[in-house]
Formats: sequence, C-alpha cells, structure tokens
Amino acid sequence: MTKPFQKILITGAAGRLGSQLRRGLAPLADSLRLADREPITDLQPHEEAAVFDLGDEAATIAATEGCDAIVHMGGAPTERPWQEVLDSNIRGSYHIYEGARKHGVRRVIYASSVHAIGYHQLDTHIDTDSPLRPDTLYGVSKCFVESLGSLYWDKFGIESAMIRIFSSFPEPADRRMLWSWLSFDDCVRLVSAALTAPHLGYTVSFGMSDNRVKPVDNSKAGHLGYIPQDSAEPYRAAVEAKTDIADPMARSTQCMGGWYVDMGHPDDEVGK
Amino acid sequence: MTKPFQKILITGAAGRLGSQLRRGLAPLADSLRLADREPITDLQPHEEAAVFDLGDEAATIAATEGCDAIVHMGGAPTERPWQEVLDSNIRGSYHIYEGARKHGVRRVIYASSVHAIGYHQLDTHIDTDSPLRPDTLYGVSKCFVESLGSLYWDKFGIESAMIRIFSSFPEPADRRMLWSWLSFDDCVRLVSAALTAPHLGYTVSFGMSDNRVKPVDNSKAGHLGYIPQDSAEPYRAAVEAKTDIADPMARSTQCMGGWYVDMGHPDDEVGK
Amino acid sequence: MTKPFQKILITGAAGRLGSQLRRGLAPLADSLRLADREPITDLQPHEEAAVFDLGDEAATIAATEGCDAIVHMGGAPTERPWQEVLDSNIRGSYHIYEGARKHGVRRVIYASSVHAIGYHQLDTHIDTDSPLRPDTLYGVSKCFVESLGSLYWDKFGIESAMIRIFSSFPEPADRRMLWSWLSFDDCVRLVSAALTAPHLGYTVSFGMSDNRVKPVDNSKAGHLGYIPQDSAEPYRAAVEAKTDIADPMARSTQCMGGWYVDMGHPDDEVGK
Amino acid sequence: MTKPFQKILITGAAGRLGSQLRRGLAPLADSLRLADREPITDLQPHEEAAVFDLGDEAATIAATEGCDAIVHMGGAPTERPWQEVLDSNIRGSYHIYEGARKHGVRRVIYASSVHAIGYHQLDTHIDTDSPLRPDTLYGVSKCFVESLGSLYWDKFGIESAMIRIFSSFPEPADRRMLWSWLSFDDCVRLVSAALTAPHLGYTVSFGMSDNRVKPVDNSKAGHLGYIPQDSAEPYRAAVEAKTDIADPMARSTQCMGGWYVDMGHPDDEVGK
Amino acid sequence: MTKPFQKILITGAAGRLGSQLRRGLAPLADSLRLADREPITDLQPHEEAAVFDLGDEAATIAATEGCDAIVHMGGAPTERPWQEVLDSNIRGSYHIYEGARKHGVRRVIYASSVHAIGYHQLDTHIDTDSPLRPDTLYGVSKCFVESLGSLYWDKFGIESAMIRIFSSFPEPADRRMLWSWLSFDDCVRLVSAALTAPHLGYTVSFGMSDNRVKPVDNSKAGHLGYIPQDSAEPYRAAVEAKTDIADPMARSTQCMGGWYVDMGHPDDEVGK
Amino acid sequence: MTKPFQKILITGAAGRLGSQLRRGLAPLADSLRLADREPITDLQPHEEAAVFDLGDEAATIAATEGCDAIVHMGGAPTERPWQEVLDSNIRGSYHIYEGARKHGVRRVIYASSVHAIGYHQLDTHIDTDSPLRPDTLYGVSKCFVESLGSLYWDKFGIESAMIRIFSSFPEPADRRMLWSWLSFDDCVRLVSAALTAPHLGYTVSFGMSDNRVKPVDNSKAGHLGYIPQDSAEPYRAAVEAKTDIADPMARSTQCMGGWYVDMGHPDDEVGK
Repeated sequence: MTKPFQKILITGAAGRLGSQLRRGLAPLADSLRLADREPITDLQPHEEAAVFDLGDEAATIAATEGCDAIVHMGGAPTERPWQEVLDSNIRGSYHIYEGARKHGVRRVIYASSVHAIGYHQLDTHIDTDSPLRPDTLYGVSKCFVESLGSLYWDKFGIESAMIRIFSSFPEPADRRMLWSWLSFDDCVRLVSAALTAPHLGYTVSFGMSDNRVKPVDNSKAGHLGYIPQDSAEPYRAAVEAKTDIADPMARSTQCMGGWYVDMGHPDDEVGK
Repeated sequence: MTKPFQKILITGAAGRLGSQLRRGLAPLADSLRLADREPITDLQPHEEAAVFDLGDEAATIAATEGCDAIVHMGGAPTERPWQEVLDSNIRGSYHIYEGARKHGVRRVIYASSVHAIGYHQLDTHIDTDSPLRPDTLYGVSKCFVESLGSLYWDKFGIESAMIRIFSSFPEPADRRMLWSWLSFDDCVRLVSAALTAPHLGYTVSFGMSDNRVKPVDNSKAGHLGYIPQDSAEPYRAAVEAKTDIADPMARSTQCMGGWYVDMGHPDDEVGK
Repeated sequence: MTKPFQKILITGAAGRLGSQLRRGLAPLADSLRLADREPITDLQPHEEAAVFDLGDEAATIAATEGCDAIVHMGGAPTERPWQEVLDSNIRGSYHIYEGARKHGVRRVIYASSVHAIGYHQLDTHIDTDSPLRPDTLYGVSKCFVESLGSLYWDKFGIESAMIRIFSSFPEPADRRMLWSWLSFDDCVRLVSAALTAPHLGYTVSFGMSDNRVKPVDNSKAGHLGYIPQDSAEPYRAAVEAKTDIADPMARSTQCMGGWYVDMGHPDDEVGK
Repeated sequence: MTKPFQKILITGAAGRLGSQLRRGLAPLADSLRLADREPITDLQPHEEAAVFDLGDEAATIAATEGCDAIVHMGGAPTERPWQEVLDSNIRGSYHIYEGARKHGVRRVIYASSVHAIGYHQLDTHIDTDSPLRPDTLYGVSKCFVESLGSLYWDKFGIESAMIRIFSSFPEPADRRMLWSWLSFDDCVRLVSAALTAPHLGYTVSFGMSDNRVKPVDNSKAGHLGYIPQDSAEPYRAAVEAKTDIADPMARSTQCMGGWYVDMGHPDDEVGK
Repeated sequence: MTKPFQKILITGAAGRLGSQLRRGLAPLADSLRLADREPITDLQPHEEAAVFDLGDEAATIAATEGCDAIVHMGGAPTERPWQEVLDSNIRGSYHIYEGARKHGVRRVIYASSVHAIGYHQLDTHIDTDSPLRPDTLYGVSKCFVESLGSLYWDKFGIESAMIRIFSSFPEPADRRMLWSWLSFDDCVRLVSAALTAPHLGYTVSFGMSDNRVKPVDNSKAGHLGYIPQDSAEPYRAAVEAKTDIADPMARSTQCMGGWYVDMGHPDDEVGK
Repeated sequence: MTKPFQKILITGAAGRLGSQLRRGLAPLADSLRLADREPITDLQPHEEAAVFDLGDEAATIAATEGCDAIVHMGGAPTERPWQEVLDSNIRGSYHIYEGARKHGVRRVIYASSVHAIGYHQLDTHIDTDSPLRPDTLYGVSKCFVESLGSLYWDKFGIESAMIRIFSSFPEPADRRMLWSWLSFDDCVRLVSAALTAPHLGYTVSFGMSDNRVKPVDNSKAGHLGYIPQDSAEPYRAAVEAKTDIADPMARSTQCMGGWYVDMGHPDDEVGK
C-alpha cells in the first residue's frame, strides 16, 4: 500500500518528542527528514538529516523543499529570554511556514502548548475555540504561531493542526501530570491522526492522554480521529507517594499552566 | 414479559435497512407489518405484508391502522428527480404522519439523513440543534419530514425520532465511510433505543457507529440511550489499500454530505 | 445614479404586502414585474404584470426570466388544506427557485413566517439559528422553502433572505400584535435591506418592528442593515381598550405563533 | 503514604449513603467522625461518633472542630413539611458551613440532589451551569445550600462540591432508575474524587452511574476526575419485567425529578 | 378602560422603593394594599394598609387574600445577621408565596438583587441564565426566593418575575452607580412591565437604567417589554467631582456586587 | 476636578488617528507625551514630544517613564514586508509593554485591527471571544500584541484594551466603509471609554460607529461604556453614487477584512 506521504520534515527531531515521532511516524512516509540544531548520527535508511538553526531563514526554507508535510516540534521548549523566544519560536516558525508556502507543503503539524492557554482555570472547562490566554513569553510565541497557521490556511491553503501539548514525558512526574500527561504513544497517535485526517483545514487540538481528571473539552477536534489510549492513572500511587498535595488555593494549582503562571519575566531572572 | 409494542409498521421493509430492522425489531413487538412497493415473500409467523406506494394516500393511511409505532424507512433513498422526491418523500411521509394521527400511533422513527445537513463542514462539529443545510433535493425532503414530525409532536402529541443516517452499509466502502459508517447492528440499536426511550418527544439523532473520526456532537440525543458498539476501524486497512486518499481541499472531502455536495440538479442529469 | 437592480419580480404583488412592496421597492430597480393570480390593472410605467398560478411550473419559471432579483411573497398566506399548501407554497416556491437557477437570478427574498417557529415560547428568546418549530402545515411549508433556499445558495450560489414576518398589518389589531407587529414601512425597509446588503449568502431574519416587548434575538441578521423605525406602542392604549387581556396560561399566549398553535388539522375543519 | 485528610466529618452517617461512605472514605483519612441523630454503635477504631441534630447550631458547629473536610449527607432526604425542611436542610446546612468557617475546614462535599433541577426535561440535556429548577421544597432547600456553598467559596475560600445525586440505591428499583441510578460504589467514587481533586473551588456535579440513557451533560465537572464504573443496564431485564412502561406523555416521565414533579405541597398532604 | 388588576399587594410599601411603586403602580389596579411593619398614615382613597411582620406566617398569608398580584419589596434590604435574614427574607418570602398559592394570586414580582450574582465580574458579561453567585447572606436569601418562585411557577402555576435590582436611589451616589443605577422611574417601568407582560412564567430580569457602562446582558428578559428611559450619565460630572477613582484592581471594583464582596460575616461584625 | 491621568503616552501621535487622539484625550490627562518617528512641531503647553523608533528598545522603554497610561497607535498601519511588521509591530509593541511593566504604567490601549479577524465572514456575526483569524502578516502582528496584552494583565496586572479598529477615516470612502466606518469622534469616544472604564482587566472591543449594517457583536465589551454616536448612513448616497456595487460572491465582500483577504504575501509584491 502506498504511504500517505513521501517525505515528512520533523523539526526538533533530536529532542524528547522529536525522537519519539521519528520512530512513530515512519509508517506514514517513504522517508523522514530529521531537522535539528544538533547532528543526528544514527540515521536509518529511510531517514535523512538536516542541521540548521530555525533562526536561519534561508536554511530553514531550504529544508522544507521536497516535503509534503512538516511536523514542527523545534524551537525553545520552555520559557526563555525574549530574544531567544523571538528568534527560535517566532522568527523560526515564520521561516517554516514560508518554506511550506514556497515549496508547496500541504500540511503542517505544530507543537503548540498548554502555555498558550495557561491562565485559564481547570474549572472553566475551555474548549479549543476559547480565547488565548498565554502564561509566558513562550506561551505568547505559541499563540503567534497559531495565528500564523490560521493565516496560511485561509490565504495560502496550507492545512495546519495546532497541537497544544500539555505534559509529554516518559511518565507523570508530579501531581499536575496526573491530569496533564500526554504519553509518548498518545503523542504519536495524535500527530499521526492530524497528518491523516480526511479534512484538517485549520484545527486546534488539546494534547492529553485519557487521564481521569478532564479539565478541557477537545470535542471540536473530533474530526482528527485522535483517541487516546493511555492514562496517568497507573502512575497515581507512585506519584502521590513521592510528592506533596498541591495547595488547592495556589494559582499554579488552579490554572492549566501550572507553575508557569508563577514565573516572572525571563529577562529578570538570573541563572534560570 | 410483555413486549413494548403490539404492532410496528416498517416502511421500506424490503430495502437494505428495512430488512435489517425486520430482523432486529422482532423482539420489540408482537408483530411487524412490513410495507414496501415490492412484495415480501418470506413472511415469518409474526410478520404481515402491506404492498403499496407511499404516494397513495389512502393505502398509506390504511397501512398504519392498528400499529402503535412506525419505523419509516421507505421512499427514495438517494437523490432523484424532483417529481419523485415530491411523491415518495414529501407526499409519502405526509401520508405516514396523517396515518399516525388518524390511527393513534404513538411513535414514529424516521430515516432522516446526513444529507439534511450535508453542507456543514466536518470541522464545525455541529450538534443536533444546528441549522439544517441540505445538500440535495433529497436532503430537502428529509428536512421537510423533520419539520413535519416537529409539528405532529407539538400539535398532535405524536412522538418522533429523526435518525440522520450517515452511511449504513454492510461495511465501509470508501474512505468517507471510515467516519460516516453506521453498522447494521448499530442501526438496529439506534432505532430500538428510539422506540423504547422513556421520553422521546421530538428528538433528532445522528446515526453513526463509534468510529474514530467524530465530526458531530450527538450528546443532545443522549436521552435516547443509544450506545454504538461498532467501529469502522477494523476495516481501515482494507479500505485504504483499495482507495485513493481524498483531496483534502475538495468540498466533498470537507463537507458531511460527501460527493452529494458536488451533484448538480437531478433534472439536469441524464442517465446518472 | 444607477439603480441596484434592473428588474425585480414581486410575487403575490396584488396582496397586502405585495402592494406595499410595489410602492416601496420602486427606487431599487429600473422596473418591477408584478406577478399574481389576479390581474393588476393600474400598472405604472415602470411596472409590468405577469398573471399565473405558482403551481404552474412553466409559467412560473418563465416569469423569472430577465429579473435579477425576486421578492417572493406569493402563495397561501395562512393555514390551508394540505393540497393547497402543497401546490401554492411547496411546489410553487420550488418553481420560483428553479426559475432563479435557470435564469441566473442572483437574490431571492422570501416571505417566510413566524409560523415556521411558532411553537417556541416567548421566554426562550430564540435567535435565527434556533431549530425550526412550525405550528401549522402552512408553517411546515415555510420551513420547506427555507431549506430549499439554503440548498440553492450552497449548491447554485443564489443568495437568499428568509424574512420571518410576524404580523404585518396596517396597525396592531390585537394584544399579540403589540409585540409581533411589523409595520408596512418596516416591512419595506427590511426587504430593501435584504436586497441591498453587501453580503447576503443565506440569511434568516425576524420581521418585527421596534416594539417594546422583544421576544426574539435578531442580531445574527445584523449584516442585513435592517433598523426598524416603527413601534406598536402608540397603538397600545387603543388596542388594550378594545381587547381583553389574554390568558397568560394559554399556549397561544405563551408561544410565538399565537392562535395558530391551537388550530387543528386544516383538513378536519369545515368552513374555516 | 500520608492520607490526604486527618479527619473527615460525615453527617447523616447512619443513613443509606452515609454508611456506604463510612466504608468507602476510610482510605482517605486517618479518622472519620460519624455524625447522625441516631447513635452509631459499631464504631471501628478509626471512627468516632457525634450525636446531634443539625438544627442545633452549637452542637453542629462543635462537631466540625478538628476536621479538614466535611461530607454533608445529613438532613431530610426527601420532601417534608416546610418546618422540617427549614430546620434540617436550610438551617442545618448553614450550621455546617458556619462550622467550616469557624474551624478552618477546607472542603465541603454536599449531597445536593436531582430535585434541585427536577423540572428540567430529559430532552433539554442541561449541564451543570443551567439554571436551577427545583421540584419540591426539598429541592429548594438543595438550591439554598448550593448558593450558600458558592458564597463560602467566594468570600471565605472554603471549597465545595455540590453532588446532585439522582437515585442512589442498592440497585435500580424502577424504570426511571434505569437512567437515574447512582450505584453505591460510584457514589463513593464521586465523593472521593471531589475530596481529592487538585482544584475544586465551587463545583457542581451530577451524580449518576454510566447508564445507557444520558440526559445530562456532566462535562463541566470533568476536573473532579469522576469516572463512573457501574451501569443500570444489567438490571434492565428484571426491572422491565416487574414494572409497567411509564406513560411517555406524563410530566413525571419527561422531567428529571420523576414523580416529585407531581407531588403537591407537603403541608397539604396528611400522613404522607 | 378596565385596569389590569383589581388589587395589588405591595410589601415594604413604606420603604424607599415601596413608596415609589405606590405612586407608580396606581394606574394598574383598582386598589393597592400597602403592607409594611410600619404604619402608613397618608392613605389615599384607592389604598388600604396592612401592618404586619413578614415573619408572621398567618398575618402574611392573610394579607394576600383578595389580591391578584403581589409586588414583594419587603424584608431586610441589605446584609443583616443570619437570624434576621432567615426571618425576614427566607421565611417571610415563603409566607408570601404560600399566600399566593392559597389565595389564587396570579403574579408575584419580587425585588431580587444584584447581590444574588454579586461575585460575577463586570467583564464576564453574564446574562439572566448565568449561575447564581451571591455575595452575602442577604444575597443568598435572594437566591432562595428565586428558587422558590421557580418552584411555585412549575408546580402551582404562579407566574413570577425576579427583578435583580442593582442600585435604586434618587440619583447615583458613587462611581459604581454610574453603571449600576436604576432610577426610580425606571424601577416603576420595570415592575409595571413585569406585571403586564403578555407571558411571564418564571422570568429573571436585571434592574438597571440605560447607563453607558453595560456589564450585563438583559436580552433574555426582552419579553417583559422593559425599556429603560433614564441614564446615570447626566450625573457623571458631579459624581466624579466628589468621589475618588476606584482602585481598578480591587475586587469591589471588578465585581457586580461592589463593596458587598468585601464584607465579612454579618455575625462577626459589631455595630455595623 | 482632578483629571484621571497625569500623563498619557500616545504613540503614532503624528499619524491619522494619533492626531485625533491628541486633541480628544487632552481632557483626560494633565499632559500628553506625543511619540512618533516624525517630529511634532506644533506642541501645545500640555504636550511634550518624544521622537524615536519603536524598534529601538531602550528609547521606547524610556518614553514610557512617568506615564500612567499608554495609547499605543504606532507601528506599521497596514500590510508591510515581514521584516517591517516584525520590527515595528511585534518587537515595537513588546518594547511598549516592557516599558509599561518597568515603569508601572497601569493601562494600555492598543490599536488592534479588524485584520486580526479579517477572514471571518459578515454573516457569522462573531463576538469579541471568537477565535482570531488574521488576514495578513499585519493582522498576525495584531494578534501577537493581543496575546501579549493578555499575558501582561494576567502576570503583571497591567490592564489593556484591544481596540479592533475597522476603518477610521474622515468619512466613508467606499461601500465597505458603509458598515466598517469608525468616525474620528467615535474613535476618541472609544479610547476615552477604555481609559476611564471602572474595570478593564483585559478587554477586546470592536471599533465601529453606529452604522446600519452590524456584522459583529460587541456586547462583551459593554463594560467599557462605549456608545457610538456617529453613523455612515449620511454618507451612503454619495458613496453609492461614486462606487460600483461590490460583487456579493467575492471573498473580499463576504469577509470582515475586505480586500486584505485578497492580498498576496507582502514579500512577493513589488512596488506595492
């Protein structure tokens, strides 16, 4: 059977999620182009590497050539000083979309983040159409890319999925992750679903596993066909044994973004 | 135990779904009256046949006598020239409701269709209260019968369920059916649920199996008690192997109604 | 200045509202074609007459030729026996839309009715996206034409406004009209607004004047630019003096449709 | 591992649900204080008893001392004469909240009831933000406590969950319970989830098992982490065999509150 | 012309709003019964007095006899100790509704309050279906009466309007009243509209004049026919000249309830 | 009377709207600091000038010192090449917010734009919570600043109003402006309202005059107290006389953003 894609570009391919996707997306494409600032040395036959910085416009655009889809996981993965957020996430993602436009890429799957809506409270039960409410400059950069993807769909016909990843780690590491966890396998399932959905257009989806606590409503992304298979529940006892109960009155407990909502401005913090 | 109904009239009983319901609804009634334009020859002891055309007002009304429920699956099952849509679906269904009114039938379950809302896009995630948006004259006739059922509930106290069937076939035949499929068993479950729901009034429900891609929100029909048990997923590999990927930019891919949205006017088309 | 239209077809032109529109729409078109079953004898220079029955498909389609807009006010104006509703309103309106399709008419303004949503209660404050809830066969026929207009927009690109007229009379005649009244001048304003709105697509609008009691939300039709200028309030004292207070517990007081909700089936009633 | 609570006060501890919670909540606290008007004689080592009437302000407030959570199941469990509703449910619950305020209790879980929203119909599919619509004075008292809990959260920072219990019995006893049933185990799951949810604030939740008929939308309580595990379905055949089909036109069939909606005023009824 | 009512009972008739309504409602009834704890000595020919305390069940019920409408403005008009709130507002209003039930009164207009929803913020723009969120025990008592009125409509067919009065004073006295003000004349207009609305059922309405700042959405009460005629704007310059700008970060500035949200528990405060 | 502000910084003060605000905001502050890239030479006694480029971080931050409010109208006022959008609008606005944070400015009023939501259609009647849908890179930069303002409110307590200006010109210049026009006086009214609203927090408002065609719902900004006083209607005849009717089927007619939706990528266009 023909694979749905010929070549998928994965940015941030050496990172935590990038390496999972490298494994998980292999069935969907004849080959994968693995982009990262760091060289990747264990290339498989169906893989090729591309080493560049997202802030480098020409290199980034060049890396998109010949791809029919982009899974854009690269850029600063957490709060960083403004200049770095600007270069890696804002300018870098613009370069990715320009590459998609110039080289006819049809779909972009973007690693957006819970931090684009981090100041919403758990009990308001937002859905994917609720207003943005970023909790950091990092979160603002995620909002920027979501707007950019919306434009490139409406104006240039490039389909995009904005995956707002909550907490994707090998296993839940603290009590917040008991509801915010996205297992690696579910992350692969979600990105795969977005790549192969019959109709994507411009779609926002929350990226969580099937955890017991459900603070958001993902139903408007139901056309992606993402059905999480994992849950944080098996890890509950271990997590609760090693961590204190969070203060229920703390803003970081009440808000989606967790401790990001308590962060100060990144340029004020030394040695962070 | 007493069965919930004494006699259920099934129209279109010789058709694809009618024959499934003939089998599936047997446990709910002492007898079934099987109506169709075509004679049914293999009648079981608990069954009786009624042969007539829905456009025949007197015959249709007569066929409802002595029934306490009607499962109305008859009429043109797809786009047809206006005169046929008018006679079979519009006039014919009016005759059914008149029969229900004149003979004291309490519940009508109607085979409405996705084509009553076919121009809505998958990513708008409509629910059962969203505005109608038919994709064909056939779809307009389904809208008409929904309005008619609403009237007969509000004015005459006849309860109705409008089942908007998506694609009910033995198995998914194309990529669209990977999300639109309603298995025969789920179809029987849904009609049975509507017949036996504690409170029906006037209720609209989407008729789909528990497929992975979920483009609509059926929760407002939750009081019917329909829980689909089947999924198109086991058929995915086979379907994808034999069919091309649909063009994600085509209106027929983006809209609920599939290729019906691309149909021209039925009176213009020769030999279609 | 060029007028926005060359020729507008007005159906039901000899009727109560038709004659108002004949006067009121003159500034919008070079000429008006006035259609009715009854001959119109006092034609003005910019007017021409077309005498036919809407049930006559060929005549109706022919009457649309050369027009760039249709204001469709014709058909049975109240509850009638089924056969008449079917011929005048269902089949007749289908003929109008077929005429529009075959002769390239760009906009259709249709006299829909409160009776398409007559069983909704005043205190539920519906908007123009709320589900249909007809109160008569007449109301069902209005629902049918709304669905038809939706189809002809989505499939054939013919823009439509569905004006749900509440009570358009010279002045409020009973207590219900103190909230449901649409003055003749406001009726002209609303049809004119729909004809000249920059973007129409498929739009539903409630047709009421700026009365004090406001039981519906018309804001989703705000892009039509209809601003009512009249109110039933100056007539209140006179109306209240001559009519009894309605029973607040009666369904006909609580529902939009007024006494239509208490009507029986038209084919059961003799001499009504 | 440290238990989440030191001491939980359970009111109504000798009652039907109280005795279930006594068993079910033991893992969550070092000790349970069991309050009831009736003495409890089979105390376990981790339990202590408190015998008093909720109408006794001083005794009720005293009973809350030293507790870090309250599960308030006490008070009149059904419609009662006004004076009893006033004393047991309105005044009694005020005393509980005053105890919580004066003694620094952090969370209150309250046994609200379907009868706070009993006049809503099954087919309107309400959610936890829908307006109150009590069906009895008993239901009004539940509404009162919900408002009180809202105040004590906003003003005094005491978190509350309002559990609107539908029908919590050993097994479904009639056809209504086929959709309204809350198994004892699911009741324990729901109260436990509310006690341990990371963020509670002021939250309303419907208390039902995972029954097939789903007339309400509980998704806005998803942050509690309540996942029902039981269903009335295994009991369906037995229930249907021994009970008649409910009249689908009866208000008691159509409304959430069941036969409570048909009750008269409690002070009019003798010997009820 | 016949007046719409024969006798209206006004409670709290000696109070600030009661005396306005005494004047303003005279045109609507043949006579007014003026109830208050304080004797009213300047009775007009169309007026009669009734002196009693709302906590006196027999006297309150007796006072409703012979009335066809009640305008219930009596009870504690602000935060008071619990016992007083309980007696005057909770028990007292129950007595009023019992009177209405026992003596066949058709409509009750109740002076509810902004303090029933006082913790909602101005920028959330609530409507009349939004959840209750009281800011004081006084506010909780208003919530109680709203629930009671809902019950008496659904169960006993007594229509009620719950008027959530914001700030009804001779003129705006502080900066908050620049948006929360309800002029005396508009108060009379609103109560009159509720008394004479064609369909009332159970309706909640916000009571504000047509002030420039509009923090709530009153459209779901549009069927009352209340059109405010006054505005706080003419008083702005004077108010701003004599009062400081409120701290925009203070909860009392951000919330509907104003300084009520900062009040402590009334039983804790001495000499308030 | 004390003015509400001591010093307001107006950026883009030499521009079309800046000069209007310079005049209109004078009554609200003791002095105005007028910032622009171009020198302003006709300074009044209550004015001071600040000449710098928004891309200059240090200069921009310095210019905010001593101000208690900022009216940020500066930056590229239309679609420009990416580098200019990035420097003037994205980086420049970040500098403004950093200045506000570092110098304790309490309120920022930002000139956002219809082009942040330009691809929404007129007939979808969005409100201020609807998802962003920018129509240009310029629009994306407006979205970015809205997200930034949201962050600075939630994290740093700086209040912001995002004014989505539609078309603010001396008078309506084309048919689109007949609905999108914001008169200069209404622009001043809106900015003044936002500056003096009792509670601002983070608020989005559409900036339009009281035109007849109303394609958006601004009610969620009602707490600003903006009441437009002007309308495009008096200009209608003149505009219609000199401009053609727009093609109702063109995307630029159907969408909020007008001809911006048809623009290509700014870096592709030469000499635009």
